[in-house]
Amino acid sequence: MSDRIEINEVSPRDGLQMEKAFVPTENKIAYIDALSECGFACIEVTSYTSPKAIPTLADADAVMAGIRRVPGVRYTALVPNLRGMERAVAGRPDEINLVMSVSETHNRANLRMTREQSVAGLQEVLREADKIGLPCNVSLSTAFGCPFDGEIDPAEVLRLAKALADSGAAGITACDTTGMAHPAQVKQVSEMLQKDLAIPVTIHLHNTRGMGLANALAAYETGIRRFDAASGGLGGCPYAPGASGNVSTEELAHMFASMGVDTGVDVEKLLGVVRTLSGLVGRNVTSQLAEAGTRLRRYAPPAWLAEKFPQA
Amino acid sequence: MSDRIEINEVSPRDGLQMEKAFVPTENKIAYIDALSECGFACIEVTSYTSPKAIPTLADADAVMAGIRRVPGVRYTALVPNLRGMERAVAGRPDEINLVMSVSETHNRANLRMTREQSVAGLQEVLREADKIGLPCNVSLSTAFGCPFDGEIDPAEVLRLAKALADSGAAGITACDTTGMAHPAQVKQVSEMLQKDLAIPVTIHLHNTRGMGLANALAAYETGIRRFDAASGGLGGCPYAPGASGNVSTEELAHMFASMGVDTGVDVEKLLGVVRTLSGLVGRNVTSQLAEAGTRLRRYAPPAWLAEKFPQA
Repeated sequence: MSDRIEINEVSPRDGLQMEKAFVPTENKIAYIDALSECGFACIEVTSYTSPKAIPTLADADAVMAGIRRVPGVRYTALVPNLRGMERAVAGRPDEINLVMSVSETHNRANLRMTREQSVAGLQEVLREADKIGLPCNVSLSTAFGCPFDGEIDPAEVLRLAKALADSGAAGITACDTTGMAHPAQVKQVSEMLQKDLAIPVTIHLHNTRGMGLANALAAYETGIRRFDAASGGLGGCPYAPGASGNVSTEELAHMFASMGVDTGVDVEKLLGVVRTLSGLVGRNVTSQLAEAGTRLRRYAPPAWLAEKFPQA
Repeated sequence: MSDRIEINEVSPRDGLQMEKAFVPTENKIAYIDALSECGFACIEVTSYTSPKAIPTLADADAVMAGIRRVPGVRYTALVPNLRGMERAVAGRPDEINLVMSVSETHNRANLRMTREQSVAGLQEVLREADKIGLPCNVSLSTAFGCPFDGEIDPAEVLRLAKALADSGAAGITACDTTGMAHPAQVKQVSEMLQKDLAIPVTIHLHNTRGMGLANALAAYETGIRRFDAASGGLGGCPYAPGASGNVSTEELAHMFASMGVDTGVDVEKLLGVVRTLSGLVGRNVTSQLAEAGTRLRRYAPPAWLAEKFPQA
């Protein structure tokens, strides 16, 4: 099993869409360009949803056109439907990310469609994308629990994942949308998906209840090598008030790097970018790791030590 | 391997000693009495260190005398030396907790002794405690890294643990004093200690860099069944400014309970106690879990759903 993981940095999309203030297009571009220098395998740049639905990402076309692409980084964008895909194509994404929920109520609340309608709509996008050779990942929201419907049957995650894989998805992401996952469940779902799918599986975690990194570890131990994460832990879910954001990229990369796993990410460089987040979004973004520093940060011993232990 | 873990709630000692304000004795007692109702295996009540060194715990005698003891809960107290033990005996602890650091510089800074002096001093306490049948746990600070000396050789942790076990320690706690541990290291040290010690091993974690629960999971997977934790994630280390506190008991208990592990702890009852912490310590204590609620917390779907999907 490879000791290399791929991190998909989702803060420009999954983080900024939840911010109240519109981040000016040129600042978004500068932010994404800074992320591009950090060594990510993939960056989710924006979303081609209706500007009415998500006004903070209304500048998707300009952002995709404006970023400086670093070789080796896959640039992806969220696409809700066929119309979104048609818009996205002009931005030349390396892949697109489709989305639906595993739970019926969350799918209706978030996408205003039944799951049946969503599957049909995504299959349509998959068909059209295939014609132009555009790879599509599918993100399955609420795969580990739904704030409306509660516990989710892993068999339902697998059923939808297989249906979409059979329809041509290039990858499946199981999303813990509101931070309900626990390690034993992540292990079960990760093993199930990897066993039955021939395409890469990504795990998307939130840290709502402190279990983000424990869940990442549990997934890693089953062989999962792709993770979504958002710098500064940005993000959240409008349907679970108080739910905090995505697992923080810097903490995820730092943990795996500490364990000797190659993440591709330059953690110190990333921490530099994380420290710009408060300025970017216009509110105080706290990052535990940015405050504490990486694990081997050293402090000077108290000055009196040299006097008390002169022989040292 | 048993699916039951024991949680040692250390906030009354390891948490309150770091608070700036002195918590009135009767409030400490009420807090510990409330914790006693939550189902902990063990509560570290106070510290018999010099009132000059730790003025916030100067009321150790009164606190130990004042708490209401619940059968099944072990009440322990930190003891720095023989004089501390003599004081502690009057408080009738079920066990005492001795402490020294694995790293030389932290031991000197924190205890004003060399490690050699500490070992000799603890051996003296162990001998005297043995005479009166008082069990002694020994906590080894900086077992996973030192803010002054950096990386710690696991062989050093093992060497000190064995020396103290051979001298009569009833248990050893490996402490990640400033949150430097990572899961692969926790696995290594946990396996090493359990293999070579015939007494129970406890893991004491901090969440400074977000890895607290991931480390707990890694320890659990090696067979560790005892954990220190502090409600509300209270605590910290005076020598690593900015370092946040202990792994939060409510998040630790919630994770293991979600996984089907019996922790003995009533998480909802504990969250009720956690919500009193800000009042207790006179500053804002944030608890992610207290804010988000346990994982299966349900929200009402948006009202417009019923109109849009009348057939539902």
